[in-house]
Amino acid sequence: MKMLINSPETVVADALRGMAAAHPELDVDVERRLVVRRDARAGGRVGVVSGGGSGHEPLHAGFVGYGMLSAACPGEVFTSPVPDQMLRAAGAVDSGQGVLFVVKNYTGDVLNFEMAAELAEEDGLRVERVLVNDDVAVTDSLYTAGRRGTGATLFVEKIAGAAAEEGAPLERVAALARRVNESSRSFGVALSACTTPAKGSPTFDLPDGELELGVGIHGEPGRERRATMPAREIAELAVGAVLEELAQAGPVLALVNGMGATPLLELYGFHAEVARVLEARGVPVARTLVGNYVTSLDMAGCSVTLCRADEEMLRLWDAPVQTAALRWGR
Amino acid sequence: MKMLINSPETVVADALRGMAAAHPELDVDVERRLVVRRDARAGGRVGVVSGGGSGHEPLHAGFVGYGMLSAACPGEVFTSPVPDQMLRAAGAVDSGQGVLFVVKNYTGDVLNFEMAAELAEEDGLRVERVLVNDDVAVTDSLYTAGRRGTGATLFVEKIAGAAAEEGAPLERVAALARRVNESSRSFGVALSACTTPAKGSPTFDLPDGELELGVGIHGEPGRERRATMPAREIAELAVGAVLEELAQAGPVLALVNGMGATPLLELYGFHAEVARVLEARGVPVARTLVGNYVTSLDMAGCSVTLCRADEEMLRLWDAPVQTAALRWGR
Repeated sequence: MKMLINSPETVVADALRGMAAAHPELDVDVERRLVVRRDARAGGRVGVVSGGGSGHEPLHAGFVGYGMLSAACPGEVFTSPVPDQMLRAAGAVDSGQGVLFVVKNYTGDVLNFEMAAELAEEDGLRVERVLVNDDVAVTDSLYTAGRRGTGATLFVEKIAGAAAEEGAPLERVAALARRVNESSRSFGVALSACTTPAKGSPTFDLPDGELELGVGIHGEPGRERRATMPAREIAELAVGAVLEELAQAGPVLALVNGMGATPLLELYGFHAEVARVLEARGVPVARTLVGNYVTSLDMAGCSVTLCRADEEMLRLWDAPVQTAALRWGR
Repeated sequence: MKMLINSPETVVADALRGMAAAHPELDVDVERRLVVRRDARAGGRVGVVSGGGSGHEPLHAGFVGYGMLSAACPGEVFTSPVPDQMLRAAGAVDSGQGVLFVVKNYTGDVLNFEMAAELAEEDGLRVERVLVNDDVAVTDSLYTAGRRGTGATLFVEKIAGAAAEEGAPLERVAALARRVNESSRSFGVALSACTTPAKGSPTFDLPDGELELGVGIHGEPGRERRATMPAREIAELAVGAVLEELAQAGPVLALVNGMGATPLLELYGFHAEVARVLEARGVPVARTLVGNYVTSLDMAGCSVTLCRADEEMLRLWDAPVQTAALRWGR
C-alpha cells in the first residue's frame, strides 16, 4: 500500500503541522497533540472538547472553530488520545463556565475522558461528559461495550457547539448534546477495508464481490457479509436498520457520510437512494449533509446517520459555523 | 472493483438526483444534465458557466451557488458535456449581461464549448470563454493540445464568480478569469490509478512501489514513474515544478488537492511539506485550501496548485461564497 506520508511514526504530527500551516485561526500544539480555537476563552462560553483516534478526519480537529468545538485532542491512528491531552484541552478552553467532553463510545476514549474529567474537576473545573453511541449495527464489539459512536458525533458537536456559542450554560449544553445523541442512529457499510500507516496492509480481508454491512469506523466487523449489491439495496438496508431504532416521529437531519475512498459522485448517487427510501417511509428530511466527515482512512463505503431533530436542534444546526471542514452562515 | 452505484449507466443521473435531494437551492435538471443556481438571473449579473466530464466532484456542480458558478454542465464520466447542455445553461443564466464559459483545456470540452458559444451568440447572447490550462506536467497529452486544465479551475471559478456577484461587466470578469489562469500552475502525483464505472478496472497500471509524477486528472501519463518516496520529497518535486513556470513574485493562493482516495490526514501532512518548501523558497502563502476539490474518482494522490494572487484576486477569493462544496463569509 502506497501512502502520501513521510513515515508511519510521524503521520499525526505531520498532519498537525499541516493544519497549523493551513489554519492560522487555530492554535495547533503539534507536540502535545492539541488543536484549540484561538478565541476559545474570549467569549466566556462553555468549552466543547472532543477527541479520539486519528484516521477519521475531518473529525475532530476539522470541527474546531466558531460555533462548534473549542478544542480537539487527536490520538494516534485509531488509538485513543491520553487523559493529559484532554486535561490540557479543558484547561485551555475553560473560561469559568465549564467544559463539555464529547466522547465517542470506544473503551479507550471512555476511560481516558473519564480520567481527564476527574483530574480537571480536581483542578476546580466543571466538566460534563456526553457519550455518543449511535451505531445500531452491533453492540459489544471489538473496541466497545454497547453501541459504538460514529456519525452522530458531528450532529452532537455542531448542535452543542452552537448552543455554547450562544452562551447556554453547561447543564443545558450537556443536556442538549445527550438529546441529540439519543435522537440519532447510524449504520455503516464497507466496500473495502482500510489500511493503517503502521500496519501497511488492509486491517481486514474483504474479498471482491462482498461488502460488510454494519462495519465500524475502524473496520470492526459488522452484522454480516453480503454479495455486492446496487446502491438502492444498500440504502434500503442501511436506512431500514437506522429507522428501526429511531422511534420518535418527525423530520430528520440526514448525514450521508463517505468512509474516505468512495468518490463524491457515488455518495451523491447513494444519497438519491437514501432520500427515496426516506420519502417512501414517510420520513421528512429537514437538512442534508453529503460528504466525507467521519472517515476511516482509505476505506471505501459509507454510513447513514439520521437525527430526529426538534425545532431547537434545527435552529442550532442552522446557526453559523466556521471550522476547517464545516462552514456556513457567517 | 466494488462501487457504491446502481449501474455504470446511471452513475451521473443518480448523482444528479442526489444533488437535487440534498440541495434544494439548486435547480437540477437530471434529464438534461444541468445544475443551475435558482437565483442565477435574479441580480442582473454576468453568468459564469462551467462543465466537463463527471468524476472530478465536487468540480463543477459543487461550485454552483452564490459568489461562484451560475450553472454547471456535467458530462458522462471523463467525457465532455455536449454543446446543447452548455447552450441551455447559458440561456438559463443570462440576464442580458452576458455569460462567461470556464473551459478546462481538454479537446472535447474546448470544441463543445466553442460550438455552444457560437450557437449562443446566434441566439443573441454575449459569450466570453476562458481556457484553463495550468498543468505544468506535460503538454500535448492524450486528451489535450497544450497544457491540461486542472486545479486552477477552482481559483478561476471562485474569483470570476465573486467578480460577477459584485456586478462586474462581462469583459472585466473574463479578463480577471484569464489573469487568474495565467497566474496559476499545477502539478499532480498519482499513487494509484482510478477506476471508471464503465470500465470497472483501473484505467492504468501503477505497480506497488511506484508513483506517477505529473499525472492528469483522467489518469493520463505524467512526466515519469518513480519509486515511492516520502511526502517531503514529493512536495519538493511538485512545488518545484510549479514554481519553475510561475514567474511572477508575490504571495500565492495554495491548493493542496486530494485526487479522491487519499485520506485527509495524509493531505494535511503533505500540506505541511508544501508549506515548508514554499517557505524555504521565500514564497509567502496568502491563503490555503486543503481537501478534495478536483478529484479523479478513486485515485490516490494529490496535486498542488499555486496562484500568484494580486490584491484584487485575494479580495475576491475572500468574498462570500455559498455552494455545496465551498462556503464561507456569508
